[in-house]
Amino acid sequence: MLLRPIGVVHSPYLEMDQAPFQGRMSSAESVVEVFEEYVDGLKDVEAASHLYILYWAHRASREILQNVTPWGPEARGVFACRSPSRPNPINLCVVELVRREDNRLTVRGLDALEGSLVVDIKPYSGYIDAVPEARIAWFEASFRRRLE
Amino acid sequence: MLLRPIGVVHSPYLEMDQAPFQGRMSSAESVVEVFEEYVDGLKDVEAASHLYILYWAHRASREILQNVTPWGPEARGVFACRSPSRPNPINLCVVELVRREDNRLTVRGLDALEGSLVVDIKPYSGYIDAVPEARIAWFEASFRRRLE
Repeated sequence: MLLRPIGVVHSPYLEMDQAPFQGRMSSAESVVEVFEEYVDGLKDVEAASHLYILYWAHRASREILQNVTPWGPEARGVFACRSPSRPNPINLCVVELVRREDNRLTVRGLDALEGSLVVDIKPYSGYIDAVPEARIAWFEASFRRRLE
Repeated sequence: MLLRPIGVVHSPYLEMDQAPFQGRMSSAESVVEVFEEYVDGLKDVEAASHLYILYWAHRASREILQNVTPWGPEARGVFACRSPSRPNPINLCVVELVRREDNRLTVRGLDALEGSLVVDIKPYSGYIDAVPEARIAWFEASFRRRLE
């Protein structure tokens, strides 16, 4: 299972300490540049109000299985948190599609660092992807405090 | 960017024509078996009510960039639809976590075929992942008709 980069992120975040813990915590815009050989795959993408961007977290560790998160002192399993460090460091971010210009998608709310390689783009549907009542027991209370 | 399988899906769907177009269209249960060497990564996963399961769509084509979907006659770009066929055939499905028993996660709503390799598991948070108002212009009307 060998991934092919289909594009690259142009982001205001140059270093990990500049990026938000989650893209949804920021309204900054980034540009996803899709490589020319994959542009045909973007047909009709502008019909989507929101997208999933899957990108490779190139600075993450693939060797750790538990991690302390920004949301508390406890170590969590990497499959129980959204740390970029995990056996396959594919980050997933829900973004708003602001506009498309040919092979360039301007998006709002992407937490990727400048130069991150994109591996997939999927349209997000409120019908199949939104579960507003979904909860992670230890996460939301801490998240809410950060937002306040 | 080489992916490591972290688990395997045990599913009631043995062939593609048995699987729902989207997992959310089904309440069937599947089991995600996480391989022993990755079980430490599951610590606290049961705190999540819902999970993202990322799995490799091993029967998909990686060479096509546009595809006719179940939702209408038009060809859509692979980055504008949820077809498993795409340059990197990583399917993404939001599932309900029914229970965890050691390295086995029983989940509801997974559209993966029996034997699909899992590449990542992430907890889903209504706070950061739910965008109920998100729309794909051509998709929802057709999807609604299918549900009726």
